[in-house]
Amino acid sequence: MTTIQAYGALAGDQPLQPLQITRRAPGPHDVQIGIAFCGVCHSDLHQVRSEWAGTLYPCVPGHEIVGRVTAVGRHVTRFKEGDLVGVGCIVDSCRHCEECEAGYENYCDGMVGTYNGPTDDPPGHTLGGYSQQVVVDERYVLSIRHPESQLAAVAPLLCAGITTYSPLRHWGAGRGKTVGVVGIGGLGHMGIKLARAMGADVVAFTTSESKRDAASQLGAHEVVVSRHTEEMAAQQGRFDFILNTVAAPHSLDDYLALLKRDGVLALVGAPSSPHPSPNVFNLIMKRRHIAGSLIGGIPETQEMLDFCAEHGIVADIELIRAEQINEAYERMLQGKVKYRFVIDIASMGGQA
Amino acid sequence: MTTIQAYGALAGDQPLQPLQITRRAPGPHDVQIGIAFCGVCHSDLHQVRSEWAGTLYPCVPGHEIVGRVTAVGRHVTRFKEGDLVGVGCIVDSCRHCEECEAGYENYCDGMVGTYNGPTDDPPGHTLGGYSQQVVVDERYVLSIRHPESQLAAVAPLLCAGITTYSPLRHWGAGRGKTVGVVGIGGLGHMGIKLARAMGADVVAFTTSESKRDAASQLGAHEVVVSRHTEEMAAQQGRFDFILNTVAAPHSLDDYLALLKRDGVLALVGAPSSPHPSPNVFNLIMKRRHIAGSLIGGIPETQEMLDFCAEHGIVADIELIRAEQINEAYERMLQGKVKYRFVIDIASMGGQA
Repeated sequence: MTTIQAYGALAGDQPLQPLQITRRAPGPHDVQIGIAFCGVCHSDLHQVRSEWAGTLYPCVPGHEIVGRVTAVGRHVTRFKEGDLVGVGCIVDSCRHCEECEAGYENYCDGMVGTYNGPTDDPPGHTLGGYSQQVVVDERYVLSIRHPESQLAAVAPLLCAGITTYSPLRHWGAGRGKTVGVVGIGGLGHMGIKLARAMGADVVAFTTSESKRDAASQLGAHEVVVSRHTEEMAAQQGRFDFILNTVAAPHSLDDYLALLKRDGVLALVGAPSSPHPSPNVFNLIMKRRHIAGSLIGGIPETQEMLDFCAEHGIVADIELIRAEQINEAYERMLQGKVKYRFVIDIASMGGQA
Repeated sequence: MTTIQAYGALAGDQPLQPLQITRRAPGPHDVQIGIAFCGVCHSDLHQVRSEWAGTLYPCVPGHEIVGRVTAVGRHVTRFKEGDLVGVGCIVDSCRHCEECEAGYENYCDGMVGTYNGPTDDPPGHTLGGYSQQVVVDERYVLSIRHPESQLAAVAPLLCAGITTYSPLRHWGAGRGKTVGVVGIGGLGHMGIKLARAMGADVVAFTTSESKRDAASQLGAHEVVVSRHTEEMAAQQGRFDFILNTVAAPHSLDDYLALLKRDGVLALVGAPSSPHPSPNVFNLIMKRRHIAGSLIGGIPETQEMLDFCAEHGIVADIELIRAEQINEAYERMLQGKVKYRFVIDIASMGGQA
């Protein structure tokens, strides 16, 4: 067991603070990772503030983890000390169900999240990447092929990247396809970059006139301000696929109407209160779909990282020190970040 | 022009009554059909009672039409006098859009319904199959290969049959797939028969304990009474596809939870007031879909009729005389029909 520095909360109504936690010694199949950077995801905030059911304390969030291998167990074959690696939202799963066998660990009923999941390690639940070190079975560790200089900006690929890459790939975003991306935040800005790199014709949707230029710079061929009724009307029936990254309750009908026959509106954010009920006629009249998608499996996450390395894709980030995390949460709630905070774990100081 | 007997309404608050209407003389591409039987669809009632927007009067419903060809235009190649034929929900479409070219006339924005659609014929809107005769372009006429003795029971295939066949085929119902059919009425009873004939493992869902035996007799391998919580719980995560034929507002979450990863819940009925908004988590956690489907295209309707002829499939019907139609509507509203009324058009008497 190693004692390390971390940032986390002791209760849902308390700010995050420095904590000391322990990590297990690497088992035969484990990889021990010295964490360099950890992205800040909206899920972190939901979990640590107990906005989702079942938060266990102390809670150390963080599932956009990048760093270097510091030790490996004796049966580890895919990694060695010094490798650049990442860990995303999943650190374990049942490993034998249909989903796990197909590389869909994200849909395994026994999936163990990188934080707040069940584990035999103390304190009995997993502790995330706002910390100096983590020990993870090699099955759930990803190789990073980006140059080390980009490492901080690679971190958000582990959640924001795969959460958008997986549905874009699954529903066939690519050359000859018209793809919409709704919302230009942590997820949406990745969705635009990825859909563009896949070769799709990309239309970004935002409620904010002020994001028009930013969306173009991210790679959108066209930007639609969704509050402008006539702009929305001009998009009717054009889309093969729309990736909706907005979790706040809003009308799905506005987007369903933009789909072609057999088009899919995929939701990757779950609203805290329900969206208005979608109009079934909008589904029936063109055989349209509403679907959901949850992060991605481990093989697909590696594929995404390799795709991003090949295409020079990283997240747009603002690097912060660990002690700025509570302030960063407030700014994230106000949408005042372009587009992802990443914690420089070196700022935690002390001995890893 | 020919003057014929029909049954229809002069206003939304009036019962159906005998009417005289006219049909055009067959043009070069037209098929003139002496109607033998016409099925009674719930849509007929919605339209004639002005429960859907835009009903034009006089309104003659009916889009489950079977009969014999009585004359053909000089360019008609696929039909000749005496052929057994059917006409479903579609009598025209734009014929040149992407949908029409792909045989998806049902998704053409210019689709003309068999009743209440735009036409140059008097009175300016189409009049349906509660009538002695109809004239339809051969592109929208279907061949019937069932024996003539089954003709009345073939009629409902033209709407109830294709409305269930199309989504079952599109979403891959067949051997090795577990398929649910929700609701055992005009649509649902066809869904059970068709899914069974396609080779799927079929589970019927009904709110009514009393329909258990009937659903088994229709071909369901298993019947679940959806009010029984523990019966529903036992079905979780089992289904590749669920065909939901119930238009009354109800919880879609109860059925979403029964789908496997990538499973589809397809709605073929549109509720008059919305279903409760589905829980987005149910979609996200297993990449599930909610979709809609609208009848089927003309080539697919012919495929369905041929499939049914080959497998000996017809609807379960109760034959009525034309003057019983108002009473039949009341019984349909109460669910007191097994499972489809069909009008014996000969009962209209007079000269066709």
